Amino acid sequence: MSKSSTVTVREMPISEVTSATTAGLTIHGETIVISTDDRIEVVDLAERIMAFVKRLRIREGIVSLWSMHTTCTLFINEFQGALVSDMKRFLEQMVARDDEWLHNDPDHSDCDRMNADSHLRALLLGHSLTLQVSGGEVVLGQWQRILLAELDGPRARTLRIQGWGIV
Amino acid sequence: MSKSSTVTVREMPISEVTSATTAGLTIHGETIVISTDDRIEVVDLAERIMAFVKRLRIREGIVSLWSMHTTCTLFINEFQGALVSDMKRFLEQMVARDDEWLHNDPDHSDCDRMNADSHLRALLLGHSLTLQVSGGEVVLGQWQRILLAELDGPRARTLRIQGWGIV
Amino acid sequence: MSKSSTVTVREMPISEVTSATTAGLTIHGETIVISTDDRIEVVDLAERIMAFVKRLRIREGIVSLWSMHTTCTLFINEFQGALVSDMKRFLEQMVARDDEWLHNDPDHSDCDRMNADSHLRALLLGHSLTLQVSGGEVVLGQWQRILLAELDGPRARTLRIQGWGIV
Repeated sequence: MSKSSTVTVREMPISEVTSATTAGLTIHGETIVISTDDRIEVVDLAERIMAFVKRLRIREGIVSLWSMHTTCTLFINEFQGALVSDMKRFLEQMVARDDEWLHNDPDHSDCDRMNADSHLRALLLGHSLTLQVSGGEVVLGQWQRILLAELDGPRARTLRIQGWGIV
Repeated sequence: MSKSSTVTVREMPISEVTSATTAGLTIHGETIVISTDDRIEVVDLAERIMAFVKRLRIREGIVSLWSMHTTCTLFINEFQGALVSDMKRFLEQMVARDDEWLHNDPDHSDCDRMNADSHLRALLLGHSLTLQVSGGEVVLGQWQRILLAELDGPRARTLRIQGWGIV
Repeated sequence: MSKSSTVTVREMPISEVTSATTAGLTIHGETIVISTDDRIEVVDLAERIMAFVKRLRIREGIVSLWSMHTTCTLFINEFQGALVSDMKRFLEQMVARDDEWLHNDPDHSDCDRMNADSHLRALLLGHSLTLQVSGGEVVLGQWQRILLAELDGPRARTLRIQGWGIV
């Protein structure tokens, strides 16, 4: 069994900005970079995504958010300092960092980040969100925030955001 | 660190019903309300979503379901009384309600619902589903049901449903 | 309380291949079958999905992947033998197979597969993915692979894949 992970190779790198329009429908994509400061960190992206959608000028549609990393996740929850501390503690409880994971064992893995815990915690949260746009704004409840969870930082993380819709 | 959660404010409230059409493509959105009776409860929404899609009269497309709340989730699974009991027990095992969560501590949080467990359980299930529509009906397997998990009821919960497609 | 699970019945079975086009927008769906060999198994679908998208010839768009089963899931992570072993161990730790689940108890359930663990593990991973397409290729990071987790095999599993986009 190979110690290496399978690499995904596109024929062409993803363009910074892409656009396509047909008969009143627009699809627009952009790349954004978020820098994190800690190994585990929760970042509130809601304002940034709301601003992106306003800039797009679509009235009804969807917006897709995609993390380009395996150990950086996207999800919805409330954003409050106390709750963010609880989330970190919860993730640490669910997956022990110092357990004897094979991904951290040089006999079985050529990964030198020792980050099996980060990969397993990512399974719980997921890597993407597909949100609705209505009346020119993102559909979110009063306490809902669009959150990124860095699980193996600090690092610069790339997200791709794609909006679809009718003007 | 603030004890309060960040609030999400749209410029305009979401309309009850929205529609947009361009060159044969229709996007239609509606708001629905589900009332729950227990603190933790699983509700089967499949018939309701299937009826919405039929009413839309799109042939090929997608339908997005969005919970407007942080402690009310949407997911796919089998719907059977015994399994629903197992799901509730599982969620209660994964996150202990009476653990010393900071979100429940008045020194760190101005939330008086004492619902840290509800927020953390929601991380496991997620708040939205994006389903396919084909041949005018939702794409679902024989045992798949579209389920809502109330995690901090009883309450009236608002969902937004958006269908996209070609007639 | 009924011992049976609610069945989902479409009026018409899902067609093997579906297509719709309007004013430059194409929606194309196909059914694919994956055979698994073990009770718990992780299968890398990335090459297959990347090939599907190339065949579609859409430039900007989305691709939706849907598992037609309750105990077969779809998610993103790194694909490496050691990490896959860790994922299986993690799922087995999170939900004990031999716990006294009601879904496995003939007094409460008419299911004879004794697979409560499979249903509960599926809650953690989810049943679908909605990916972006840009520049004619799927948007994936270097280490991201599109993974299927069989949780109650070996079985033949049906997935539905639907691509949307502008040429």
